[in-house]
Amino acid sequence: MTPSVSSAKIIKIGSQGQENVPDLVAIEEPLEIRLGIGPVDKREQISLSVTMRTPSHDKELTLGFLFAEGIISSMDEINSVEYCAAIKQEEEGNVLRVELSPTVLVNEAKLSRHFYTSSSCGVCGKTSIEAIKVPIPDYPEQFIKIEASLICKLPELLEDAQKVFEHTGGIHACGLFDNEGNLLKLREDVGRHNAVDKLVGALLLKKELPSSQSIMVLSGRISFELVQKAARAGIQFIAAIGAPSSLAIDMAKKHHITMVGFLKNSSFNIYSGSERIVSKD
Amino acid sequence: MTPSVSSAKIIKIGSQGQENVPDLVAIEEPLEIRLGIGPVDKREQISLSVTMRTPSHDKELTLGFLFAEGIISSMDEINSVEYCAAIKQEEEGNVLRVELSPTVLVNEAKLSRHFYTSSSCGVCGKTSIEAIKVPIPDYPEQFIKIEASLICKLPELLEDAQKVFEHTGGIHACGLFDNEGNLLKLREDVGRHNAVDKLVGALLLKKELPSSQSIMVLSGRISFELVQKAARAGIQFIAAIGAPSSLAIDMAKKHHITMVGFLKNSSFNIYSGSERIVSKD
Repeated sequence: MTPSVSSAKIIKIGSQGQENVPDLVAIEEPLEIRLGIGPVDKREQISLSVTMRTPSHDKELTLGFLFAEGIISSMDEINSVEYCAAIKQEEEGNVLRVELSPTVLVNEAKLSRHFYTSSSCGVCGKTSIEAIKVPIPDYPEQFIKIEASLICKLPELLEDAQKVFEHTGGIHACGLFDNEGNLLKLREDVGRHNAVDKLVGALLLKKELPSSQSIMVLSGRISFELVQKAARAGIQFIAAIGAPSSLAIDMAKKHHITMVGFLKNSSFNIYSGSERIVSKD
Repeated sequence: MTPSVSSAKIIKIGSQGQENVPDLVAIEEPLEIRLGIGPVDKREQISLSVTMRTPSHDKELTLGFLFAEGIISSMDEINSVEYCAAIKQEEEGNVLRVELSPTVLVNEAKLSRHFYTSSSCGVCGKTSIEAIKVPIPDYPEQFIKIEASLICKLPELLEDAQKVFEHTGGIHACGLFDNEGNLLKLREDVGRHNAVDKLVGALLLKKELPSSQSIMVLSGRISFELVQKAARAGIQFIAAIGAPSSLAIDMAKKHHITMVGFLKNSSFNIYSGSERIVSKD
């Protein structure tokens, strides 16, 4: 497997002057996702997307991405996921080929974010906000309770778990915890979207979706797309070290997701769903 | 103009207990870029991309994006940039239409990152890394010198300049400074790529490209794509609060860009081009 970190010779400048030292940096490389679709007698292959990612858990990343985009809903729709072999040497390990089950109907509209379309203003009928929305299943609402004091501990628990971070300091993490603070799963990537896709892909692979009883902890800020990815995975609690955007808050409220931001070891902000957070008496 | 921040009712949890307070959050909304291309008698319109951005400087964002993608190289290739009028009310201000000059030949391969293509493994001949590369003009190398002590001041200077940041804490910044620490330009966005596109678009509009004598300061980490955007704009000095990825460092070395990361008020790391950094005697 391609490693996730590489070494670099750097010059450290500090109050002590300058020092030539070896350092570790997070690897960033393109991953191309190719999709085999269509009925048995009329298979077609499309190059769906190229994403910049940190190598590791590529299959989970790919599955999580396809799930997040609404292209698949379960592992039953996947025939195989394999690295392409017949490619140039320099991209070995960077091209994944997913064969969808012939019974899966791929709605080209679902792929529309990934290709341009000829259209006239006001004619195509699809609004730009519609283009970025994916269908969210109607998961039953969960009312797990989590203590405020435990929420404050999550950043430290996440950091403890981040082995790659320890080396490079340059990588995003997405951690899944239960409501007692036990780490269920952790994934990392230079791209925060990828970290979430890897984690959701891992859950999908193990048939652990929807993940309605868990807390997703993010090392960065919360964008609309991250909330959408979580919502599709049935996650109903998101806690982030960073700030949410306006649309992220709207999305969380719409899907009854509890959202906490600016999470520090003694404070945080609640943007939605405060009923799931309790204080110890 | 659509505002960049909106208000939200939040609950602050801290050592003093909990408080219901109003707060400001960074707005995130989709921007669709539509492109009018082709000769006068055969105009065609394509929907190029939908990006999640903080409203403000949308035209600059769009121009910077087109420039970064290698679709345009100068303002001479632009006939007009206007918000679409004949669209649904909810997306007013969120769809920009760019009319390229009829003489501009749009190479469909240049757009390939934005749509999927039918291809067979090993047949299409385009590697995934090639798909993400754009041509970088051969700008003459500049040897401006910058003092290490001044570099340490850049994070503070950037933060002082970040008016939106002051309110929300949730937005990325891209600042352009001269080698005496004077701020030349600042742009902000929930997406760090957008902040860079907005800044480069502003330079393009004012015919200030290439910007070879300036320092680009980034509030976050440095990805390959950010370095590529800077390289295309002729920028030869990048300083970031966060860490660079492996590919970001490779790209900086290839284009003789000085790259500084983990920038704090008393220390930083040099990843490439240390000859531009001097110490006061």
